Amino acid sequence: MKNLYGVILAGGRGTRLWPISRELYPKQLLKLFGNKTLIQQTFLRLKKIIPSEKIYIVTTENFAEDIVLQLQKLDLTKKNIIIEPSQKGTAPAIALAMKKILDIDKSAISLVCPADHLIVTDTKFLNSVKIAFSTAKNNFLVVFGVNPDNPASEYGYIKTKNNKIEKNKSYAVEKFIEKPSGEEAERLIKEGCLWNSGIFVWKNRIILEEIKNYLPKVYENTDINSPELYSLIDSVSIDKGVLEYSKKIKAVQAQFKWQDIGSWKTLHKLLPKNFDGNVLNENVFDLNCQNCLIYGAEKRVVAAIGLNDLIVVDTEDAILIAHRDQTDSIKITLEIIKSKNLKQCLMHPTVYRPWGSFTVIEEGLNYKVKKISVMPRQKLSLQFHYKRDEHWIVVRGRAKVELDGKIFYLAPHQSIDIPVASKHRLENNGREILEIIEIQTGSYLGEDDIVRIDDIYSR
Amino acid sequence: MKNLYGVILAGGRGTRLWPISRELYPKQLLKLFGNKTLIQQTFLRLKKIIPSEKIYIVTTENFAEDIVLQLQKLDLTKKNIIIEPSQKGTAPAIALAMKKILDIDKSAISLVCPADHLIVTDTKFLNSVKIAFSTAKNNFLVVFGVNPDNPASEYGYIKTKNNKIEKNKSYAVEKFIEKPSGEEAERLIKEGCLWNSGIFVWKNRIILEEIKNYLPKVYENTDINSPELYSLIDSVSIDKGVLEYSKKIKAVQAQFKWQDIGSWKTLHKLLPKNFDGNVLNENVFDLNCQNCLIYGAEKRVVAAIGLNDLIVVDTEDAILIAHRDQTDSIKITLEIIKSKNLKQCLMHPTVYRPWGSFTVIEEGLNYKVKKISVMPRQKLSLQFHYKRDEHWIVVRGRAKVELDGKIFYLAPHQSIDIPVASKHRLENNGREILEIIEIQTGSYLGEDDIVRIDDIYSR
Repeated sequence: MKNLYGVILAGGRGTRLWPISRELYPKQLLKLFGNKTLIQQTFLRLKKIIPSEKIYIVTTENFAEDIVLQLQKLDLTKKNIIIEPSQKGTAPAIALAMKKILDIDKSAISLVCPADHLIVTDTKFLNSVKIAFSTAKNNFLVVFGVNPDNPASEYGYIKTKNNKIEKNKSYAVEKFIEKPSGEEAERLIKEGCLWNSGIFVWKNRIILEEIKNYLPKVYENTDINSPELYSLIDSVSIDKGVLEYSKKIKAVQAQFKWQDIGSWKTLHKLLPKNFDGNVLNENVFDLNCQNCLIYGAEKRVVAAIGLNDLIVVDTEDAILIAHRDQTDSIKITLEIIKSKNLKQCLMHPTVYRPWGSFTVIEEGLNYKVKKISVMPRQKLSLQFHYKRDEHWIVVRGRAKVELDGKIFYLAPHQSIDIPVASKHRLENNGREILEIIEIQTGSYLGEDDIVRIDDIYSR
Repeated sequence: MKNLYGVILAGGRGTRLWPISRELYPKQLLKLFGNKTLIQQTFLRLKKIIPSEKIYIVTTENFAEDIVLQLQKLDLTKKNIIIEPSQKGTAPAIALAMKKILDIDKSAISLVCPADHLIVTDTKFLNSVKIAFSTAKNNFLVVFGVNPDNPASEYGYIKTKNNKIEKNKSYAVEKFIEKPSGEEAERLIKEGCLWNSGIFVWKNRIILEEIKNYLPKVYENTDINSPELYSLIDSVSIDKGVLEYSKKIKAVQAQFKWQDIGSWKTLHKLLPKNFDGNVLNENVFDLNCQNCLIYGAEKRVVAAIGLNDLIVVDTEDAILIAHRDQTDSIKITLEIIKSKNLKQCLMHPTVYRPWGSFTVIEEGLNYKVKKISVMPRQKLSLQFHYKRDEHWIVVRGRAKVELDGKIFYLAPHQSIDIPVASKHRLENNGREILEIIEIQTGSYLGEDDIVRIDDIYSR
């Protein structure tokens, strides 16, 4: 499969898992299962069958830095990040990626998959891909169908012609059924329908032809160099826009266990439960609760008494308490929170950077207090600010500080003043993590008051 | 009523209102209604009819400093604070206070009341007290009965002889009925029973005689100078231990509206509700919720979706989510939390001091970050620490710092190092509030590593 390319769709905002997932830090970037984030898991899965220089990531400007941060140690080829000029759904995102790869390899066949799905067992992933690959070679658009294990109404279903489906073969698709009712889903499962996994294999040339046929405007306007053209596209998914109409679709039964962790309700279903049907973590103290997912934030305590069928997700700055069957309404609630200009929709108090992370721990009129963690051997950019003074005190590790050309070394408890407009750089040249408390003072304290003079991460 | 004294019982821990109320900061110290705390409201109510030097507060060591802090500006006589050697219920606490006042005035009559009840309208309070006073003069123990407005099962009920009760008169009590079922409560109300308000008027001599009769050990062991003797007492309330047996009880119908805010459920009943029966504050974003009390913490967001009959109380470091009918179980949950040594049972992140307050905003291995607020014209004690360095940076107002005999003045952004063992004092001699960020570093950072050399608050 020398001409097989991987394309990971990583532009999704995943508001449905708020407040763990935030608009600027969505679920693909989170460690929901195990010690790897979902996008890391996805990337590693593809890397087993596709060389990393042939794996592309489609995402938006907002997530690009975080994705690089998470994937660079896994051998991501940085120039393989494709930035969507704006968020317009999967069809335009796929068109962008297909065109870019086709420019490099006219015979390219692409495996396209979402960044934020969970594949529980992937030992037979390669096997499934081989069958899809050989089907795609015959100019078919292949979609992986997953054997349903419950009549979920939040998924799409695939009905093959004559309801035929067998391992290791591909079958013509009769139609797609999007989000059926529970009853309808049960009927579909009895008939032998499969879940639409959102994982596809096809020739770049063929899918682009079909996009041209069914979504001509998408085809024309997807030019990486023309954000204006791109912005004119109406949002559309590849399923609704192309697959539901194309006559070239074939389904391959996936030999892997798949889950779209689309909502807290699904997550509750997935996770191992205690005797009372609860999923709880160590910060939760429960009494007489049934069928709840209760996730308590670090350093905080949740006392839960007499609750039924609730989703409770606590974080440092926001908490969700929702009935299990109403988690779809998170979207509406977030719109309201957003209208109040509250940053809880957008981001976490902790923000990740190539060199480590920072957390705003206190804010007041004309001041802000941050805890800054710098990983060993990392350094921030050489920078200055127009409007704020900073004051740094080391609380862990050792800091190397460059200030207007001079070098200072600080141990715990030692501090330094960073006046307005002075050129400064914080570095951890030790082997231990470096933690400092930064107190900013000034009339304007926005993150955008930063001028980077030199940056090892080329920001 | 020259020989009338006031006694406020302020030793209660009020765990039932956790997490707003904490073991070391209970509900009498909280502003639950209006801009005064419950103990401030109680003190001011008594002050209208009793000179402040005749008003005594019975409490435990734990709360004494906070009570002084809250009442000194209201003209509390500081030596009138009576410290219970340990918490043994209302009977011993009352005995202590009765003895102390009797030593001063052999003819003393005392009005005894809890610190943590709410009296909604108290215009006729004086009127009611006058009737009780003249009844007490005839050697009766007077209890105020309140007209019930619902068949609450969390209160005690008073049944007068022949169910007689009229305004401006006192009636013999037949019996007390503690926490009846809802049905029984309805019957009691029909019969004309009253709620037991826990507010009493009696001659000190008479109540002490009755304590001696019915609780001889309490009588003998209540000596302010013998904590050992006091510790041998079994906990007992004045109601259970004396009033239910005494033949000298009379009830006076209270001409005021009273509430014991004993639980979140009661509070939910009391507070004004919106169209859906919800009590919400501005940090709450609700969708499809009914009959809930949802209190969101400052700087945090609560998204509440599809909830019914829930109590949600969010604070900076802990959240309670409980079914309305199960809030009694808070006690059990707190025992469990306490067994894990979590400070969320005991105190809030913000701690009040005579000079202002401090909040721990971050803690890590060998360091702690505090925000310290000093009120205008106040100063901390002159002090030193054996085991920690401190580093202060001003973020608001101006600081006067004494450090090993030298004086420094700091404006916002200016900082100073306070090395281990150096004698230091922080003062706000300005008119604006002073806020500093304190970074402590060292191997031991407990609050008890403090040696006070001089303190304007005589601590």
